[in-house]
Amino acid sequence: MISVIILGAGNVATHLYKAFKKAENISVKQWYNRNIKSLNGYKNKVDVTDDFSKLKDADIYIIAVSDDAVSNVSSKIPFENKLVVHTSGSVNVHDLDKKHKRGVLYPLQTFSKSTNLNFLDIPICIETIDKKDYHTLKSLATSISNTVKKVNSNQRQVLHLAAVYVNNFTNQLYRIGHEITESEGAEFDLLKPLIQETARKVQELSPYMAQTGPAKRNDKKTIKKHLKLLKSEHHLNIYNLLTESIQKTHGR
Amino acid sequence: MISVIILGAGNVATHLYKAFKKAENISVKQWYNRNIKSLNGYKNKVDVTDDFSKLKDADIYIIAVSDDAVSNVSSKIPFENKLVVHTSGSVNVHDLDKKHKRGVLYPLQTFSKSTNLNFLDIPICIETIDKKDYHTLKSLATSISNTVKKVNSNQRQVLHLAAVYVNNFTNQLYRIGHEITESEGAEFDLLKPLIQETARKVQELSPYMAQTGPAKRNDKKTIKKHLKLLKSEHHLNIYNLLTESIQKTHGR
Ligand SMILES: NC(=O)c1ccc[n+]([C@@H]2O[C@H](COP(=O)([O-])OP(=O)(O)OC[C@H]3O[C@@H](n4cnc5c(N)ncnc54)[C@H](OP(=O)(O)O)[C@@H]3O)[C@@H](O)[C@H]2O)c1
Ligand SMILES: NC(=O)c1ccc[n+]([C@@H]2O[C@H](COP(=O)([O-])OP(=O)(O)OC[C@H]3O[C@@H](n4cnc5c(N)ncnc54)[C@H](OP(=O)(O)O)[C@@H]3O)[C@@H](O)[C@H]2O)c1
Repeated sequence: MISVIILGAGNVATHLYKAFKKAENISVKQWYNRNIKSLNGYKNKVDVTDDFSKLKDADIYIIAVSDDAVSNVSSKIPFENKLVVHTSGSVNVHDLDKKHKRGVLYPLQTFSKSTNLNFLDIPICIETIDKKDYHTLKSLATSISNTVKKVNSNQRQVLHLAAVYVNNFTNQLYRIGHEITESEGAEFDLLKPLIQETARKVQELSPYMAQTGPAKRNDKKTIKKHLKLLKSEHHLNIYNLLTESIQKTHGR
Repeated sequence: MISVIILGAGNVATHLYKAFKKAENISVKQWYNRNIKSLNGYKNKVDVTDDFSKLKDADIYIIAVSDDAVSNVSSKIPFENKLVVHTSGSVNVHDLDKKHKRGVLYPLQTFSKSTNLNFLDIPICIETIDKKDYHTLKSLATSISNTVKKVNSNQRQVLHLAAVYVNNFTNQLYRIGHEITESEGAEFDLLKPLIQETARKVQELSPYMAQTGPAKRNDKKTIKKHLKLLKSEHHLNIYNLLTESIQKTHGR
């Protein structure tokens, strides 16, 4: 049995809590948040607190607070030599107070409180400064996820950076699709099955193999038509840059 | 019962054939391709030909050939006053030979022969020059899809353009995610659940509401870290342009 204490009550903390509750070999001993109100809905299920001095003893402390607060929260944990991990893709593991045994448990997914996610499908990237702590953190992670990977700090940062491309930037392309369709009285909804199939395709094929369309074919006639249709300079710049990018990748 | 003849044996033609075969009120009377070999696997199931002069009589002729060949193929159909439609998002409906009654049946999805798709989930955009032909084309489309929309030429072109953003450009962002991870010995596979969740999220939320991340939060520290990590100028340009785009959308 691994005992854990969660610190923070945001998107990640909430999903972690639910996943730990389902796992057989994990007990959530306590849940801390600076604002106790966020934990009100859970106070009959788990010991909740907003007071660092009341933190209990546990095997692992998981800090799932805003990136900027990770360092400060870690120094307020009133113990030494405890395994303390944060959940961020970009915060340095050395930003955790050095009185602790330190590590990272980075779940590679986009979380909002309202969406249901099956944590077993979410890859967890783990890292510990001291090899001795690796086994404990791995046991914790494998009890909630089917995909647990050891990554070093550089790989984690690179994964976080790549996540910005495939998540935030991709979502912005959806947004532009929305702007373009609505401005001409066409329905964005008609694009939704295409959006899903585009994501599904690369679950099996590499993005290189999955590519199609006018840029890859170097279909100048269609590209010219599109450039003429585009009314916003900002949409045009993105069209040009990504068309160029595809042509670079596919050797045009 | 609506009788159809398919012209072309590529991705779209093959998926259409399979969808028509399943539909109760449609009979595929003949399948034409300039190269008969592509149709060999079907010759026991349907009448196949590579000879325009042997084309039979039918209610609708569906031209699913490369965009550049649509016009030429339409003029070779040895009939007049027949309903002839193409399947392209960008070809003008007037490019079809004017001896025909003309229209468009544009399925808004990315097709490859090897993937299984449920045609019922694929939106079909339809258009006819003459109102009188609309009903027939709509009957055909609704017998294979649950989402059939009347669109005009401009809307169809705009949908096709938006499809380039959410399909080709998005896939290129996946490709860059692949390049960034592999170049640092991290695994692209770890991003796959995130890719699917990003696409799933906008099935319910607008892309505007679904946006998260450092660009939206204007998290300068993380953005600076990312810019430092990026080694390729080309990746950098895309990072900058899409970060700017997100900030424009979210009023930063
Ligand atoms: N969201 C994602 O998709 C995602 C994915 C992977 C990793 N992560 C990482 O997970 C961590 C948490 O992210 P999140 O999305 O769960 O954040 P969030 O929903 O914004 O929640 C932030 C939490 O941090 C607490 N907090 C903020 N500033 C604090 C401070 N100065 N002192 C103490 N607590 C403070 C907040 O407390 P109050 O409730 O009192 O405001 C809240 O409980 C971050 O490191 C993030 O990089 C996030
Ligand atoms: N693929 C998609 O995702 C998609 C989605 C929506 C709409 N569309 C539209 O559907 C149409 C077909 O696309 P596709 O992807 O199915 O194409 P494809 O797989 O490349 O197949 C092209 C077909 O056109 C035939 N063809 C090419 N040039 C010809 C010519 N000069 N004369 C006669 N036949 C010719 C080819 O014959 P051979 O077999 O003899 O080479 C082949 O059967 C296009 O208008 C496209 O814009 C495609």
